Amino acid sequence: MTDVQIRRATAADVAAIVKLIADDQLGATRESLDDLTPYLAAFEQIDADPNQLLMVAVRNDEVIGTLQLTIIPGLSRRGSTRGLIEAVRVAAEARGSGLGGMLIRWAIEESRARGCSLVQLTSDKTRTDAHRFYTNLGFTASHEGFKLKLS
Amino acid sequence: MTDVQIRRATAADVAAIVKLIADDQLGATRESLDDLTPYLAAFEQIDADPNQLLMVAVRNDEVIGTLQLTIIPGLSRRGSTRGLIEAVRVAAEARGSGLGGMLIRWAIEESRARGCSLVQLTSDKTRTDAHRFYTNLGFTASHEGFKLKLS
Repeated sequence: MTDVQIRRATAADVAAIVKLIADDQLGATRESLDDLTPYLAAFEQIDADPNQLLMVAVRNDEVIGTLQLTIIPGLSRRGSTRGLIEAVRVAAEARGSGLGGMLIRWAIEESRARGCSLVQLTSDKTRTDAHRFYTNLGFTASHEGFKLKLS
Repeated sequence: MTDVQIRRATAADVAAIVKLIADDQLGATRESLDDLTPYLAAFEQIDADPNQLLMVAVRNDEVIGTLQLTIIPGLSRRGSTRGLIEAVRVAAEARGSGLGGMLIRWAIEESRARGCSLVQLTSDKTRTDAHRFYTNLGFTASHEGFKLKLS
């Protein structure tokens, strides 16, 4: 993975990112690649917020991984800032190559550089492979992750 | 709880909020009330970010509850925005009064008003009473919540 660059996503990357998000056991039912309009609108919001970092991993000009890091200031833990990782995806052809670890380690180091004392994420309870992956990277499954869908 | 107002926190509320955060089985070991400086610095960061809503519940000019809502734009789920709830606390004298539910329902409605399609939070696995509370409010414990402390 030495030829991989991790950089901020641009609007030109949105189609490739959505393809990665959709190419997944859970994402397949949630996404719609026919119309990128809502994704491009969301990208504008992400890109305009200095506390949002939407990243892509690129090799040979191809997007092969992505994640989003959100920096969240807070009062708890003596005014700690935390990093929240969402939407981690690695292209099928790059799985097992260490790219996922490279992306998460990037997010950990960026969080540290921005003064965070904690990095957090949630992972669907059905993604047991992902749980081993995060545990191996030093994370602790100390919390229940609750979600409420709004209609 | 009809005499309770939920409003945005000001710098003048920080000491009261930190007292609530510290008055808790887990918070007691994490906070230090002797010096508010780091908390006030964190408040300035929260207050300057339009996607951070640090709220207080006030009755008779006394802060009796708090939570922080973070609005997070994202590409997943067709460009969905999500609301993240953190640092929910209710004063000991107001527990069992329905104030916690009032705060969470406020966060759900605010998330909806801001176009979110999902509200999420994590709760320490030892807080089993909180888990019942969130389940009763309609949340599903569908995810594992992973944390990594940075030194």
